[in-house]
Amino acid sequence: MDTTKSQALYERAKKVIPKGIHGHYGYAVTDASPVFFERAEGAHFTDIDGNDYVDWMCAYGPMILGYNHPAVDGAAAKQMAAGNTVSLASPVLVELAERLVDQITGADWALFGKNGADGTTLAVMVARAATGRKYVVKVDGGYHGAAAWMQTPGNPGSTPLDHELVLSVPWNDTAALQRVLDEHDGDVACFISSPYHHPVFVDNELPADGYWSAVETMCRKAGVVLIVDDVRAGFRIDLRGSHTAYGFQPDLMCFGKALGNGHPIAALTGSDALKSAATDVFYTGTQFFNAGPMAAAVATLDELVATDAADRITDLGERLNAGLVDVAVSHGHDLRATGVPGMPYYRIAGEGGAKFHARWIAACVERGAYLLSYHNHFVSVAHTDEDLKRTWDIADQAFTAIAD
Amino acid sequence: MDTTKSQALYERAKKVIPKGIHGHYGYAVTDASPVFFERAEGAHFTDIDGNDYVDWMCAYGPMILGYNHPAVDGAAAKQMAAGNTVSLASPVLVELAERLVDQITGADWALFGKNGADGTTLAVMVARAATGRKYVVKVDGGYHGAAAWMQTPGNPGSTPLDHELVLSVPWNDTAALQRVLDEHDGDVACFISSPYHHPVFVDNELPADGYWSAVETMCRKAGVVLIVDDVRAGFRIDLRGSHTAYGFQPDLMCFGKALGNGHPIAALTGSDALKSAATDVFYTGTQFFNAGPMAAAVATLDELVATDAADRITDLGERLNAGLVDVAVSHGHDLRATGVPGMPYYRIAGEGGAKFHARWIAACVERGAYLLSYHNHFVSVAHTDEDLKRTWDIADQAFTAIAD
Repeated sequence: MDTTKSQALYERAKKVIPKGIHGHYGYAVTDASPVFFERAEGAHFTDIDGNDYVDWMCAYGPMILGYNHPAVDGAAAKQMAAGNTVSLASPVLVELAERLVDQITGADWALFGKNGADGTTLAVMVARAATGRKYVVKVDGGYHGAAAWMQTPGNPGSTPLDHELVLSVPWNDTAALQRVLDEHDGDVACFISSPYHHPVFVDNELPADGYWSAVETMCRKAGVVLIVDDVRAGFRIDLRGSHTAYGFQPDLMCFGKALGNGHPIAALTGSDALKSAATDVFYTGTQFFNAGPMAAAVATLDELVATDAADRITDLGERLNAGLVDVAVSHGHDLRATGVPGMPYYRIAGEGGAKFHARWIAACVERGAYLLSYHNHFVSVAHTDEDLKRTWDIADQAFTAIAD
Repeated sequence: MDTTKSQALYERAKKVIPKGIHGHYGYAVTDASPVFFERAEGAHFTDIDGNDYVDWMCAYGPMILGYNHPAVDGAAAKQMAAGNTVSLASPVLVELAERLVDQITGADWALFGKNGADGTTLAVMVARAATGRKYVVKVDGGYHGAAAWMQTPGNPGSTPLDHELVLSVPWNDTAALQRVLDEHDGDVACFISSPYHHPVFVDNELPADGYWSAVETMCRKAGVVLIVDDVRAGFRIDLRGSHTAYGFQPDLMCFGKALGNGHPIAALTGSDALKSAATDVFYTGTQFFNAGPMAAAVATLDELVATDAADRITDLGERLNAGLVDVAVSHGHDLRATGVPGMPYYRIAGEGGAKFHARWIAACVERGAYLLSYHNHFVSVAHTDEDLKRTWDIADQAFTAIAD
């Protein structure tokens, strides 16, 4: 595969952009990888060298219905033609809030931002305002955006004070959580977690039986606000919020990524008990009232329901994973697919370890299946049986190509 | 003016949105005000009751070329049809960075976010990463977004730790700044400020003669990174950045609002000396790579140059202000217009004070001139001589209407 144009433009980018490609997109860039897209459609994109890819990253989550979805992009375009960012709010703000309140289990209200971190940061503020407490408890390796409180200690530009009120417990460890709640009894404002554990670089983990109901009980007892960050998993497990599938009720639920199918919008939804605290918190942004992305979100929610998206994505993911595991087995490799089926994290266990796995992923990308070696993937409604078959074939060829 | 539909929808909004209208838009809502727009075009918007307004708030800054600008919205739509949020970056990312480096005085690189606060927060992180120092110095009443470090102490949901490393000095007070730099010698990472002082609720203030060159010298001497937050004023004073008009060179320059003419994008630009630190900082968001708003920004920059926007806006603002002051004088009132001409803050001095001023503003809104009593306004390229005349007429009628 030729990525000459991508690599040349990347060199140009480095002159005017720190790192060339900054942020989370930057980690995927290698000496041979595609760096820039030319166009995207359905579950595919074409890079600027003309190579076509089955895209299993879905823009790191936003794309859930397919790129250039006519109903979603049409709704956004129609709203933008009427007005996008204006000195007043648009009625679609209310429509979208009502839609989320109807759809998300336990949601009595909604507020909007752009990135997932807008919602998670606002959630923590609402929890602090409601409880008058200061500590945040999170899960080791959990990621809730790049705001100060979520920076990894020691990150350039962050300070020790950023992390001083953030405590951390292992995933699936109710005893550790109880210890932290006891140690800081009366001082913990909230526990924030993804519905299941999807860190980077390591196997993803589902909740153990009884984990979430135990956590819910512990939080209620300790007066701790329970926040679920459903930004990454939202709508790929259950259209009513992933907590619905896992049978528990958070106080605050954060959505983003898939909510606008590529149009920039994030939401915080919450219970009536926290509405007053949410009213008191000052958190806003110039672009929080963009009406186009709100119209896109309403259309996305409609299409998600119409296509029974979560079940369909789960089914597609199960088949994708089973096929890839079979291909790996046929080459004598032990490929593990962890996390929920619609957001698989892959790792080849045993011989060669991470290095061999990374070589295999690179060989897949080179052949037109866009995968990442260190991150969960995303399945969409737009992926087809043909995409599955092409991906299995590519995986097969990739194993052959990297065999010694 | 009938705002029945707006007020009814606002009641509906309160059921599903904390405060009904949250964030900065919420402060403008009164029992009689318009709350929701139906459509916007040029320098006007129509509320859902069918009332038309000359809009002097320009969506709190984003609208600089006119709502529904064909070249800008066409560029965004074209890019979105090719792809907006995809698993790779778009070439327009590089094009926009090069465009800013060409246009903004002293900019050697650019990074992108959604809201102004993304840029100002990243700027502070870059300054800390570059200096290894912790303190941020800002100006009393200066606003750089709603991130934790910018929350007003005591705000619900913020903690004392959020503010512990943020020091504050009065505007135009070089002696106070020098004292703070001396007191915390070797510990101050950056000084962040708007190019001129545009707080809410009080008269805005321009830089005193020699202020900025003195500040620049003091920062250089103390090894303090100088950050200019040009999110609000950017492109309304000077198309090369407001610092160019005031004759000084910051190390980091933040843009947003007008940059995308309503499409959500913000930028941090900086000097080569800080490029390495910017490379090291981890700060990202799901929507930071949206290509549509980047295409909108390139088109906006082109149109700003083509229309000589800053000079045109300054001229329109000067005439707007002079006309309003004349109308006020004809009614025996002392209307003060402060700040730069393209972003006037209004206050009626003397009898009645803030209360009388608020009554006059409300009477103007009621007659179709959208103004705010506590915030600077924004002039755009789309405002016409007819809009000026209509606004002066409305101001005149409003004074008559509220006369006792």
